[in-house]
Amino acid sequence: MPSYTYSYPRPSVTVDLVVFTILDNDLKVLLIRRGQPPFEGCPALPGGFVLAGTGGDDRGEDLEVAARRELAEETGLPEGSVYLEQLYTFGAADRDPRGRVITVAWYALVRPTLAPLVMAGGDAAEAGWRSLTEVDPDSLAFDHGRILRCALERIRGKVDYSDIAFELVPETFTVTELRSVHEVIKGTAYDPANFRRRFKRMQTDGVIEQAPGRRTTGARRARVYRFVGRG
Amino acid sequence: MPSYTYSYPRPSVTVDLVVFTILDNDLKVLLIRRGQPPFEGCPALPGGFVLAGTGGDDRGEDLEVAARRELAEETGLPEGSVYLEQLYTFGAADRDPRGRVITVAWYALVRPTLAPLVMAGGDAAEAGWRSLTEVDPDSLAFDHGRILRCALERIRGKVDYSDIAFELVPETFTVTELRSVHEVIKGTAYDPANFRRRFKRMQTDGVIEQAPGRRTTGARRARVYRFVGRG
Repeated sequence: MPSYTYSYPRPSVTVDLVVFTILDNDLKVLLIRRGQPPFEGCPALPGGFVLAGTGGDDRGEDLEVAARRELAEETGLPEGSVYLEQLYTFGAADRDPRGRVITVAWYALVRPTLAPLVMAGGDAAEAGWRSLTEVDPDSLAFDHGRILRCALERIRGKVDYSDIAFELVPETFTVTELRSVHEVIKGTAYDPANFRRRFKRMQTDGVIEQAPGRRTTGARRARVYRFVGRG
Repeated sequence: MPSYTYSYPRPSVTVDLVVFTILDNDLKVLLIRRGQPPFEGCPALPGGFVLAGTGGDDRGEDLEVAARRELAEETGLPEGSVYLEQLYTFGAADRDPRGRVITVAWYALVRPTLAPLVMAGGDAAEAGWRSLTEVDPDSLAFDHGRILRCALERIRGKVDYSDIAFELVPETFTVTELRSVHEVIKGTAYDPANFRRRFKRMQTDGVIEQAPGRRTTGARRARVYRFVGRG
């Protein structure tokens, strides 16, 4: 189809992943250490190139498939076990010293029960969970600090108005555990009585339901609940 | 810098624009009619290629610069006069019959006072404001129907929790005019007394302030206000 041919120079396109979990009441992000230039030795977000196909009928992989593939490769967790959402696309012309690279950033939320299973993958020299209290965004490679800040802003803005908190608790959770997720993400204490009322409202609305068993948190054996969903 | 060279096949990258305005209490979107294949003759969103540079030190334009350039070219409106925000990046491998094309979609809000000045630009055979009540998203070229639906969902989700409504009124506006923007976007009536209370709260908080003069809306000469901003 010669009339369809493009003659524009093309950028490279990557996906980068901001993978969060909560462990020990602490928000953590998955970082790799770059094993090659540029930014060799620097901490960085995991990510990689979108397979664009060799041309003709080979178009490569869907953008979201690329993000899920990288997520599986970098975490070792089964596909579908992790919440993934597109964050923002970063395309400053000078963001990569190697050439023109546009990156589509995604954020992912890993349940604390799965987080210990996460292992380094791909071309990373090292990878692991790093506490947000210890990570200096400005020390990250490329514009990854900006991407990390954008992801933090997104989850802080969403936690009270969406269901993302349910992705950061075990499959069954106590009121206190769910409140703690909110507190860790927002970096601020929630009034326990207010939060309990909000929790009860979610139960009345059928968003959550009680699950069998109890769990010891602190001094008491508390009821556990599971997320059902909305509508 | 030979060690920095990529050998991956590259996709083309475009920006597409969902440009909204409100005219005659009706939400409208700017559509072009495609003057060439593929989808020749179909309505489509305005957009174009991101200039990726010729290589070496020529990296082309920032992604946001590309979006603002296309917006200026397609509307004829001065840069900076229109609200622009990144929406989502669409990257299904088969979304363009010409080859692998990833598009970064943006939405823009044009004040009703500027909307009549908007003219067709670029390679569009025709362009103009189309009422959302008359546009069938499935009739649009490529996946532009999906992009349009995504933009509608975004503004409907944001109008009550952000300042975007102020981008769709004249510089000074009455309570009724601002309420009407909410009603048109959400497609539902707002209780006038409730909205007035909310409006007064914004005035108390310094988000809006009264402006000189009055404007006749319906039977009465109503006070006008202007948006000041937050924090």
